[in-house]
Amino acid sequence: MHALVYRGPGQRAWQEVPDPRLEADTDAIVRVDATTICGTDLHILKGDTPEVAPGRILGHEAVGTVEAVGPAVRRVGVGDRVLVSCITSCGTCRYCRQGRYGQCLGGGGWILGHLIDGTQAESVRVPFADTSTYPAPSGVGDEALLMVADILPTGYEVGVRNGCVQPGDSVVVVGAGPIGLSAILSAKLYTPARVIAVDVADNRLEAAKRFGADVTVNDGREDAAAVVQELTGGLGADVAIEAVGVPDTFELCTRLVRPGGHVANVGVHGRPATLHLETLWIRDVTITTGLVDTSSTPMFIELLSGHAIDAAPFVTHHFGLDEFELAYDIFSDAADTGALKVVLARARG
Amino acid sequence: MHALVYRGPGQRAWQEVPDPRLEADTDAIVRVDATTICGTDLHILKGDTPEVAPGRILGHEAVGTVEAVGPAVRRVGVGDRVLVSCITSCGTCRYCRQGRYGQCLGGGGWILGHLIDGTQAESVRVPFADTSTYPAPSGVGDEALLMVADILPTGYEVGVRNGCVQPGDSVVVVGAGPIGLSAILSAKLYTPARVIAVDVADNRLEAAKRFGADVTVNDGREDAAAVVQELTGGLGADVAIEAVGVPDTFELCTRLVRPGGHVANVGVHGRPATLHLETLWIRDVTITTGLVDTSSTPMFIELLSGHAIDAAPFVTHHFGLDEFELAYDIFSDAADTGALKVVLARARG
Amino acid sequence: MHALVYRGPGQRAWQEVPDPRLEADTDAIVRVDATTICGTDLHILKGDTPEVAPGRILGHEAVGTVEAVGPAVRRVGVGDRVLVSCITSCGTCRYCRQGRYGQCLGGGGWILGHLIDGTQAESVRVPFADTSTYPAPSGVGDEALLMVADILPTGYEVGVRNGCVQPGDSVVVVGAGPIGLSAILSAKLYTPARVIAVDVADNRLEAAKRFGADVTVNDGREDAAAVVQELTGGLGADVAIEAVGVPDTFELCTRLVRPGGHVANVGVHGRPATLHLETLWIRDVTITTGLVDTSSTPMFIELLSGHAIDAAPFVTHHFGLDEFELAYDIFSDAADTGALKVVLARARG
Amino acid sequence: MHALVYRGPGQRAWQEVPDPRLEADTDAIVRVDATTICGTDLHILKGDTPEVAPGRILGHEAVGTVEAVGPAVRRVGVGDRVLVSCITSCGTCRYCRQGRYGQCLGGGGWILGHLIDGTQAESVRVPFADTSTYPAPSGVGDEALLMVADILPTGYEVGVRNGCVQPGDSVVVVGAGPIGLSAILSAKLYTPARVIAVDVADNRLEAAKRFGADVTVNDGREDAAAVVQELTGGLGADVAIEAVGVPDTFELCTRLVRPGGHVANVGVHGRPATLHLETLWIRDVTITTGLVDTSSTPMFIELLSGHAIDAAPFVTHHFGLDEFELAYDIFSDAADTGALKVVLARARG
Repeated sequence: MHALVYRGPGQRAWQEVPDPRLEADTDAIVRVDATTICGTDLHILKGDTPEVAPGRILGHEAVGTVEAVGPAVRRVGVGDRVLVSCITSCGTCRYCRQGRYGQCLGGGGWILGHLIDGTQAESVRVPFADTSTYPAPSGVGDEALLMVADILPTGYEVGVRNGCVQPGDSVVVVGAGPIGLSAILSAKLYTPARVIAVDVADNRLEAAKRFGADVTVNDGREDAAAVVQELTGGLGADVAIEAVGVPDTFELCTRLVRPGGHVANVGVHGRPATLHLETLWIRDVTITTGLVDTSSTPMFIELLSGHAIDAAPFVTHHFGLDEFELAYDIFSDAADTGALKVVLARARG
Repeated sequence: MHALVYRGPGQRAWQEVPDPRLEADTDAIVRVDATTICGTDLHILKGDTPEVAPGRILGHEAVGTVEAVGPAVRRVGVGDRVLVSCITSCGTCRYCRQGRYGQCLGGGGWILGHLIDGTQAESVRVPFADTSTYPAPSGVGDEALLMVADILPTGYEVGVRNGCVQPGDSVVVVGAGPIGLSAILSAKLYTPARVIAVDVADNRLEAAKRFGADVTVNDGREDAAAVVQELTGGLGADVAIEAVGVPDTFELCTRLVRPGGHVANVGVHGRPATLHLETLWIRDVTITTGLVDTSSTPMFIELLSGHAIDAAPFVTHHFGLDEFELAYDIFSDAADTGALKVVLARARG
Repeated sequence: MHALVYRGPGQRAWQEVPDPRLEADTDAIVRVDATTICGTDLHILKGDTPEVAPGRILGHEAVGTVEAVGPAVRRVGVGDRVLVSCITSCGTCRYCRQGRYGQCLGGGGWILGHLIDGTQAESVRVPFADTSTYPAPSGVGDEALLMVADILPTGYEVGVRNGCVQPGDSVVVVGAGPIGLSAILSAKLYTPARVIAVDVADNRLEAAKRFGADVTVNDGREDAAAVVQELTGGLGADVAIEAVGVPDTFELCTRLVRPGGHVANVGVHGRPATLHLETLWIRDVTITTGLVDTSSTPMFIELLSGHAIDAAPFVTHHFGLDEFELAYDIFSDAADTGALKVVLARARG
Repeated sequence: MHALVYRGPGQRAWQEVPDPRLEADTDAIVRVDATTICGTDLHILKGDTPEVAPGRILGHEAVGTVEAVGPAVRRVGVGDRVLVSCITSCGTCRYCRQGRYGQCLGGGGWILGHLIDGTQAESVRVPFADTSTYPAPSGVGDEALLMVADILPTGYEVGVRNGCVQPGDSVVVVGAGPIGLSAILSAKLYTPARVIAVDVADNRLEAAKRFGADVTVNDGREDAAAVVQELTGGLGADVAIEAVGVPDTFELCTRLVRPGGHVANVGVHGRPATLHLETLWIRDVTITTGLVDTSSTPMFIELLSGHAIDAAPFVTHHFGLDEFELAYDIFSDAADTGALKVVLARARG
């Protein structure tokens, strides 16, 4: 088959590779019908993720059709249409039994396109298939469902749920890339009084409005703290969600939050930040970090099935699987192309 | 002044009474600009509430203007436009310090129009004014704000919050009178997958749809349990909210809820119900009861200020204060008049 | 092998039966080193549990040694010493993934000694062995560990955790049989201000004191409500735990609890109770029911390993496996024998 | 009267000052029967707290007798024996109504001995007396009750409750001064599997053992991370409580905590710390900061009344009120004197 292979820093290719095959009794082989590219894939390509070995097939999100299952797989069968989650769960370790699949100690966690071959391929081997795939509901298309593989649970679980967003809250989301937009859409599930999006790019702030932001702040030229203070009677935001991954935006979040509020870090960081405990120690602030667990996958499937949310606006570009190299170019140049999520789908028929 | 006086079972009159005056240092006198009638007032008039003495002025909801304050009142001043909450909070007892104002041990709780004279009058004395009134926000009209005095917090706190409604849930609301409609509107704050309204009156079910119900069931001719089972894959509802107040509807809720789900009782009951522990003991069910605390008042004021919710659909009829007797007739005959909330407002100017 | 077989209402025998064998890939065969009898087994013998077919081997608690495992079992190996939990968990259904193993939809839940052959035997087949057995820690003896199979998690999860016991609380436990004693011991984990045990048998109340009750009430001759009122400044208990399983004790719990408090039902009921909603609707009461999940098993293993609790006082009688009929006689006659838990253990060596 | 007056950095004196008098209707004047010195007072004396003006009477903890009350005080009367809390609560602002008295916006918070004159005096004016004092229970002595003014709620609320300590947890407390000891004692309320105390002073570690620590680590010569890893199967602590207030110990806590665990900062910091988001972003860590609210005061009074905890070990030295200067010397030199809490009490009779 063909797959998108990481060949070392700065190098990738859509190339011929061996077909995946069942290795453990709990594996499934899934034919990829639709997949996408994540910002994390760009980090890997830059060489920021040294545990990814050259030769690795990238990708950790897919919707597909089961082609084979190991003898111990019980809940998924050949021919089933399934969601392949970015997080693999062994189902039996301490963390998996508490719903924290992202911290799986039994061989799962984020492994697809990272420690084992991933979903940017014509087929993929999915370990622990019973607890790492989800039946695709009729009535929800591949593209919408694909957004549940990673981006929707990440914004929701790590941003909104960790941040304890409540009805009536003032919520600030710093960073309006795809993950920040997911946090905005997810925050609206709880009917906050207002969502304030902060970014330095006007086109991303425009997107933020489409995803439900009530107020936007370009903090290249506006003072985010002043805007938040004014909207909140001088107190600060109930919840500040960091969706960039650099020290400055994290520190901004700790300044924007009110006493007793929550800072939920979603961004992937490569460097330490400064935590101003000399002012924060007295302010009753809660700061959370986290990798997505995808424990909210069933909830998102319910919401999509009932048309309670619309995932379509995430998808800005459509490609065939064999157009992967072009898709990477477009996605890498999001500032100019406006790409949010690009979908690569198998040709039908 | 004039006020609506309970004169014993079946008897009421809009009549001349002495003006209220400050009795304690923490009292305020509030001129009533808008008030309304609650289903509880009808119960009192029937004689179901023997602790209400003849001569009592009824009513526990108002928006008004402060005319006088005792020397210990700090947060409210003469001329302020305020919401008078149905729950009076002493602010210092064990329950008030935990936000459970409805259970106040210090002389508060539900006292207006019950143990002391109420709001269906030209003016009303409000004890513990600092913790029992709320500043009216500019930009929110009297009628919308009046819905925060009782009906919105009741449906939300006792139904939705006690019932732990979460995004993606299937929520059943049994009873689509004003309180049931408030529960429906409040449940939507959390983006459930679906809200199912159950009632025996088609006009109330029509109202339920306008307030956000996705599915309606007339259980005079349809089988509510069958509908809920089908919509929930045979499991039952995540949350069942009782908003009628009779044994049959309570017992229905305990049959509609899934294992691990919540039954939130909002209805005011006059008789015991049967609790089928022989089936429920093993089903991990949580059942809650409660009087409203109005601790969610600030949240509702935020939501109304930000136009995140719309309270206008509750108000079906408008009267002047001197039309109280007509208003009671219309409200008492809701089956024919379609009355939800009737507002009685002081003539402007 | 030999096993204790239910032969229809009132009939049981320790008799020769076929050895268990692996049926599914996820099964384990466990040699029983220690097992016990539960009050539920007595109910089955009376014929109260018609889904238990004659011929069924009883018992749902054991500590043993793994003799064989199916090919899909990963976390347990031949020769391992394990705890066999009363609850079997498929590990993959909706409820299992949320830690509610008692409500398992995938073929688990309470099945041992109920829907499939149980642990009162020389060996037992345990389905879903990875998620239904737990490695026995060194340093914890068979008898202490056996108390984690059912009785400790039941009192804790269904009584104390559902009841939300907090430090400083006043906790009433109605019923001081083995499950009530487990609730008392478990409540002490949270340092309540006081635990009040209520029963009609003085010898059980003596046991309650040994397990940590601060106050005991024989409500055959004392007024439990009066005692609780006096100890709580007239308010009532923060938490009332029902550990009997008849309507009267449940209704007593709803009278003993303070406004805003919790009633946690642990008892197994055969008849409905009356729920006095005419008084309870306004009192902010939370009532919970539940089957144990055994999700607290790892916690109890930690506590026993660290000697933070002592399970030994539960065990009043010791037998060999071949003394099962005598053990049943002693356990059935607890009022005279003072039996709490009887342990049947394989002879060593 | 006499009082301990801050006279600028490094200077203090027990000197004659004017008697306090009622200033607001909600004030009380309390005769001080017992008071103590807090580590914060030493910071003030060093000049680290510039908002404290020279001339200020220090101290924010007392047990005393009410001498006078303003006309709006309802729950406290002349002659009552009361606890004066370190946190003053207006009782009506947004934060006070949510139980977050430490963040009071209505003129309260930490003001005694900080923004207004404090308790290290023969008498003290206490604003908002109804919500800032607590009736002293009979059966609890002045010294034990005095520990509820600040130190017990601080270790509990900011350390243990923010850290979400649960039964069976492994809890690390870094810093075994008075606040760390309070966190250790408070953690034991929840029956953790083990409490590990970390400090560089052996005498403080000895005290930690007396307060309930199961394991002690002198990280001047031992590797705390290695000890914690070994005790927790390589995972790390469930909860790490920082009770020192310098960057190194905070950063140590973030290394000691397991994925999914909690870091609760209790220490008062003067400088920023480094937050290693490059490793923490993926580890599901929750970090909290906070000023005490003293919302747990009623709980501690219940526990002391019921003899469920013993506060006596905190008090190492006893003085008369007129020995304040000596008491400060002893307390300042805790490394040599072994002082934990020093109590200054009015002579009886």
